Amino acid sequence: KNIHDTCSQFGAAHRWGPGENETGMNRLALTDADKAVRDWFVKEAKGLGCEVEVDDMGNIWAIRGGVSDSRPTQDGSGKRLPPVIMGSHLDTQPRGGRYDGVLGVMAGLEALRVLKERDIKTWRPVGVVCWTNEEGARFPVSMVSSGVWAGEIPLGKAHSLKEVAGQEGKTMMEELERIGYLGDKKCSYEEMPMAAHFELHIEQGPVLEAKGKKVGVVRGSQAYKWFTVEVVGKEAHTGTTPYAQRADAFMAANSMIHYARWTGEEQDVLVSVGVFQVFPGSVNTIPGRVKFSLDIRSSSTDKLAQFVERHLRPKFDSIAKNVGANSQPCSVTWQEDTNSPAQLFDEGCCQAVKVSALSVLAAECQGNMEKAVGLVKYNMVSGAGHDSVHTAKRCPTSMIFVPSKGGLSHHPEEFTSEEDCVRGAQVLLESVLRFDRE
Amino acid sequence: KNIHDTCSQFGAAHRWGPGENETGMNRLALTDADKAVRDWFVKEAKGLGCEVEVDDMGNIWAIRGGVSDSRPTQDGSGKRLPPVIMGSHLDTQPRGGRYDGVLGVMAGLEALRVLKERDIKTWRPVGVVCWTNEEGARFPVSMVSSGVWAGEIPLGKAHSLKEVAGQEGKTMMEELERIGYLGDKKCSYEEMPMAAHFELHIEQGPVLEAKGKKVGVVRGSQAYKWFTVEVVGKEAHTGTTPYAQRADAFMAANSMIHYARWTGEEQDVLVSVGVFQVFPGSVNTIPGRVKFSLDIRSSSTDKLAQFVERHLRPKFDSIAKNVGANSQPCSVTWQEDTNSPAQLFDEGCCQAVKVSALSVLAAECQGNMEKAVGLVKYNMVSGAGHDSVHTAKRCPTSMIFVPSKGGLSHHPEEFTSEEDCVRGAQVLLESVLRFDRE
Ligand SMILES: NC(=O)NCCC(=O)O
Ligand SMILES: NC(=O)NCCC(=O)O
Repeated sequence: KNIHDTCSQFGAAHRWGPGENETGMNRLALTDADKAVRDWFVKEAKGLGCEVEVDDMGNIWAIRGGVSDSRPTQDGSGKRLPPVIMGSHLDTQPRGGRYDGVLGVMAGLEALRVLKERDIKTWRPVGVVCWTNEEGARFPVSMVSSGVWAGEIPLGKAHSLKEVAGQEGKTMMEELERIGYLGDKKCSYEEMPMAAHFELHIEQGPVLEAKGKKVGVVRGSQAYKWFTVEVVGKEAHTGTTPYAQRADAFMAANSMIHYARWTGEEQDVLVSVGVFQVFPGSVNTIPGRVKFSLDIRSSSTDKLAQFVERHLRPKFDSIAKNVGANSQPCSVTWQEDTNSPAQLFDEGCCQAVKVSALSVLAAECQGNMEKAVGLVKYNMVSGAGHDSVHTAKRCPTSMIFVPSKGGLSHHPEEFTSEEDCVRGAQVLLESVLRFDRE
Repeated sequence: KNIHDTCSQFGAAHRWGPGENETGMNRLALTDADKAVRDWFVKEAKGLGCEVEVDDMGNIWAIRGGVSDSRPTQDGSGKRLPPVIMGSHLDTQPRGGRYDGVLGVMAGLEALRVLKERDIKTWRPVGVVCWTNEEGARFPVSMVSSGVWAGEIPLGKAHSLKEVAGQEGKTMMEELERIGYLGDKKCSYEEMPMAAHFELHIEQGPVLEAKGKKVGVVRGSQAYKWFTVEVVGKEAHTGTTPYAQRADAFMAANSMIHYARWTGEEQDVLVSVGVFQVFPGSVNTIPGRVKFSLDIRSSSTDKLAQFVERHLRPKFDSIAKNVGANSQPCSVTWQEDTNSPAQLFDEGCCQAVKVSALSVLAAECQGNMEKAVGLVKYNMVSGAGHDSVHTAKRCPTSMIFVPSKGGLSHHPEEFTSEEDCVRGAQVLLESVLRFDRE
């Protein structure tokens, strides 16, 4: 099966070995490489007999009709039943891997191919959705398009998001138009309802591998928030300005992050800074302005909020006021970019995934059910956010994890074996069929 | 007198007020704006009857002949006497002011104009030199061209310096060629000797203003070093990677700088970070690589070296090995970009400046010598580096400081009053004439 390598013609980058697939990816959302893979996806999906629609967030919906489409609906409205969807994303990190997101979409396409080749009829329509800018690596709100679909993020806010890099960044709207993926359907759970959303994804963490498990049933996700913090001081000469006369925005930010990181570790909260910009950026000018991202995660939504409100905000304010003994004050402002509370997935969907995983593994183990049971990990909590976190608010949702080598992700050497990918795809298809039957 | 505002047509930027001169400057070395002001300078100098030569570092030498040129030389070689030079620079910080460097060059031109208009003959030739890339803001070695002249920096190293911004930076050599200022003279104290080098400069610090002084006689400069430090860790997902499995290059760098800053303050060493780059620069990817500048200054060359070797290097190594309890190791490498030991200026030149300052001020104070004496500050030590620091190694050198409002420099609002500028120019010219006479 060509689940993952079909795709790497579009946006391969960061080669790390001689093998054909030994490169990472750089396919930021709505770039030319993203357009190319989207065009490819649309062509494939149409080739499999799907109807393809694009909504106003650029999400691509590829739907294969169900038997129920031609039956009168229960409520007599004539509307067809909402589809069961396999969703994930095709955008990557700037130095990302070949599996994150891509696997879920490719597995969905593969599932549609199997349905077609074996002429399997489903009751409901079944489809694949490619969500736009899941990573948030280009436009700094992750899962922004499923967020709009769920009614959690206003369309206008999403459309006007500016890309991270560059001062004169392009907006999502501009880039959607430029690559021709500003669709005419409304991105909303009311206009484009789903019966369920299943997402196959690599774990991106170390648990499955460490425990020798092959498939994870994901019960929910941890909470996280993203902020852009801006510290403003005053530019001055590094050689002639004594400490006491400095309002050094860089050193203020340095102390804030220092505090956040170590207090985070004490309190079991993950703190990361991935973007950090310094203005004007000259060796002998004390920075007058600094802008950085804060990515904060915790298993508990409340704990996360308390960490930010009770610890970080007051401490950042006091550091800004007085970076060092007697230095001049800076100011600090926060902007919340992403707020993703901890989310539980649907019990029924998790059950469908669990039974499907057991059935696939039991077949592999020639019916050795005990062995099969030992290969499944239940009740996993995702450390990363996924579009499923948003869909879970509006329709039954669950996820399937497969192992990541060394727990590594957001890195060109991210790796999941071919068998793990294929097995995940089988579990995905069975979960969809099982849900459809019930 | 139009000492400073003639120039702001080339590279004015960062407007901060409505007035004609209420903008800062962005005229990085060897940019189009720098070429434009150089062309203007060459035209002006030729208009004043100077010979203009450009050396292979792009330094522009504008020389007005002296009476001695037509006399047989003492050693019978027929070579003309080396000129007395007024030097400074026309490049600015990316968000710089209108006086830093520019004042010294404009005052030099003005001095040549006075010599011409009043038909004053000097014994030695007298001239102005515009040094290239003094700031080090674009190509990260400050005073690089006077360093080459003094034989302290190899020409090849200077030519191959890459600009700070951008991954695929242009080299000095490429940019010198592009703007047509790669001259054919050899930049060297042997080929282009000077009898003396006088530099008028704004203080860029708070001392003159605070003490109510009008002119400073600069006796020397403090020591400083610039480094580029690179920390390499491993990219990973911010949400799924526990602290213990991270090799977080950002947090390692953050801790290093935190240590450097606070230890620096304890030991009376100035530590600043003006450039900080994060790779790959995505909110939810733990940075795998970070590069930053360190600007470290102290009045003592030895103290500075000890601070770096005994404190920073070992501590940075130990932080890299273990950013936090049980996290994965990063690596750290240092590159020394600038090394400017503390420098004493020539006693005779300082004497010429002192006497000239007193004479100018005495005239202003209608002969009230006591008042004049109270307006001069002796034995100043420059916090910033200047081209004079390099020339002092090869010829008698001194500097003249005039006050900076609020001690502010490397900031668009840098300000020195017109009277202070004019007074400085007068002291400069008198110092040159005095040196020439003795
Ligand atoms: N799966 C994934 O990497 N999602 C991006 C959002 C996040 O940072 O958790
Ligand atoms: N005068 C001045 O700003 N020189 C630049 C070199 C330094 O950073 O001290």
